[in-house]
Amino acid sequence: MKKQEKKPVKELEDFGKSLVDDIEKGRNPTIEFNLRSLSNIIFDEKTRTLGLGSKQQQRTFFNVGHAKKFLQTLEVAKISKSLLDVQKHASLRDVFYMAKRTIPSSSINIVDEQAESDNAIEDLELITGCSREQLNVNANKMGSVAGNVVVEDSGDTINWAKLGSGGWSIPSNVEDIDFKSIKAKYIIYMEKQAVWERLHEDKFWEKQNCIIVTSQGQTTRGIRRLLQRLNEGDKLPIYVLADFDPWGFYIYSVLKFGSINLAHMSGAMTLQNAKFLGVTADDVANYDLKKHFIRFKDVDFARLKQIADYDWFKKNKAWQRQFKMMKEFGAKLEIQALSSKGITFISEKYLPDKIKRQEFLD
Amino acid sequence: MKKQEKKPVKELEDFGKSLVDDIEKGRNPTIEFNLRSLSNIIFDEKTRTLGLGSKQQQRTFFNVGHAKKFLQTLEVAKISKSLLDVQKHASLRDVFYMAKRTIPSSSINIVDEQAESDNAIEDLELITGCSREQLNVNANKMGSVAGNVVVEDSGDTINWAKLGSGGWSIPSNVEDIDFKSIKAKYIIYMEKQAVWERLHEDKFWEKQNCIIVTSQGQTTRGIRRLLQRLNEGDKLPIYVLADFDPWGFYIYSVLKFGSINLAHMSGAMTLQNAKFLGVTADDVANYDLKKHFIRFKDVDFARLKQIADYDWFKKNKAWQRQFKMMKEFGAKLEIQALSSKGITFISEKYLPDKIKRQEFLD
Repeated sequence: MKKQEKKPVKELEDFGKSLVDDIEKGRNPTIEFNLRSLSNIIFDEKTRTLGLGSKQQQRTFFNVGHAKKFLQTLEVAKISKSLLDVQKHASLRDVFYMAKRTIPSSSINIVDEQAESDNAIEDLELITGCSREQLNVNANKMGSVAGNVVVEDSGDTINWAKLGSGGWSIPSNVEDIDFKSIKAKYIIYMEKQAVWERLHEDKFWEKQNCIIVTSQGQTTRGIRRLLQRLNEGDKLPIYVLADFDPWGFYIYSVLKFGSINLAHMSGAMTLQNAKFLGVTADDVANYDLKKHFIRFKDVDFARLKQIADYDWFKKNKAWQRQFKMMKEFGAKLEIQALSSKGITFISEKYLPDKIKRQEFLD
Repeated sequence: MKKQEKKPVKELEDFGKSLVDDIEKGRNPTIEFNLRSLSNIIFDEKTRTLGLGSKQQQRTFFNVGHAKKFLQTLEVAKISKSLLDVQKHASLRDVFYMAKRTIPSSSINIVDEQAESDNAIEDLELITGCSREQLNVNANKMGSVAGNVVVEDSGDTINWAKLGSGGWSIPSNVEDIDFKSIKAKYIIYMEKQAVWERLHEDKFWEKQNCIIVTSQGQTTRGIRRLLQRLNEGDKLPIYVLADFDPWGFYIYSVLKFGSINLAHMSGAMTLQNAKFLGVTADDVANYDLKKHFIRFKDVDFARLKQIADYDWFKKNKAWQRQFKMMKEFGAKLEIQALSSKGITFISEKYLPDKIKRQEFLD
């Protein structure tokens, strides 16, 4: 349940002071931080997450190749500081528009594309050791949650068990939420809102004493941080429910082991106690679901091969068995195929049985 | 605030009885309902919405060309009835899997593609006069809402003013919600969650006494029904906030005048008192936003021409002026470009000023 601890205002001030110090001492103003490129991304066997290696990069002001990026980094640092000062948050797109100024007496914009300001913010995460959420720059808002949890947020006390059929809409930034009480044995995270509505209508979280969380499509940073904050204090297991296809496996992979894009944030973003609950190749036989196979296309075979080759899956026999069976099937299966067994089959039979038998992939 | 009134169980039973009646009288079992094809879609000048004309279609059992569709229609009617009987809801995808059975002693599936069951459900909406939400088939879940509104839903009392930074997550099906109190002068609907978070953080709905609603991307049926139910009892104006581009205009067009896909549901889905608040061509000059133009591509010009030719925009001088200016600009503008004026510019200046001056397109 812990919040991230670095103090962003102090970190930003220290960053500014170090540059002033360079100037006062007649040095070339210099920023140094871990190299954020593919060549410096490593899979840490100890933490079992993707992270950055020890290679460093320098960005200096008096360097034609660095000057613009140097300026962009300072500009987003200034924007973040001004947001923190007035206690407001902005989206990445907002920050882009705020940074898109023309440098006086020139025709040069500080940024022309959002990719530039996005990049500068990721650099700033490394420079300050603060996540962009802590720097008051929000990610996308997406997803819903329900369960026996009470939180305090923006002066309101919110009981996730008392929010009707809709549930609580997960904010893009969950860093300032205080958890007042968490009564649950585990968390189920699912990609599909329709599956969440199924479990919610069937009062699954109440009967099973768990928390149900969904995104819709990609797992946003807000949802990952919410899962991590829910899980950290109470060491709740997180079960991932996704389609039986390479993309379903990838959702799990990113949640548990991290991703290249967020390698510099893996400590705050990965969920080491996540387990894959389904749909698995074994479910296909156990629940007689072959009829609902959707044939693989070339792109599916290619994606499956990529995932099977990931460092963290390579030596994992249970996962390699899944990949092999999927390849032999040459087909994928949607989680909603379980509805063919009856509308409440997933919540009354499939999930309780699998959880009871601890049928997880790890 | 009114709920839709047709009783779905009774309508389904009447539908079944009429077929039994046909059989007992030795007639060819026949379903008759309004033709749902482009040739029968008309723009009703009186209600100013897209709707179905008076052409009818017949579907009979003893007809090689009709038999399969006849069976599909009965199958989804059966699924809907069984959902209503146990008071459960299913998604369109669930219904597809529930209908995908093999006909005994044959190798023929009742449905092979979701498009078939989706179509059958839309036919059933016409046959029964009940929306698919009333038939317990849910659309997508999406979006968030905040404001001085108290609702009762699934046994919970939910105050939209007390839900922290997240807000209430809008369910896919809002038919069974009871509105206990609505304190607001108007509703703002916006496409972008990031803009909603901006207004929410700035307590815009509290200061302006309004309700703020967002989807993320398409306006789902759930959101349209929510807007309609909020607006009907209290006659609240609905202001649409979208990008200045043909797709932003289209969002407004669908909300207010309906769409071809939902022409058979226009009474339950269109919002005749919706007004377009921005971003408009005039805002570009008034707020000096040209710098943030995004150049049109061919596809944008083509889409703009299509929209300018819609029946309901053709004779509307104010809208034609907008289309002409957009074409001359040859550019679009995102709503977030307003952030370049300051992070709270949109909630402290842009929106209050425009609403005060009643600067709407109708």
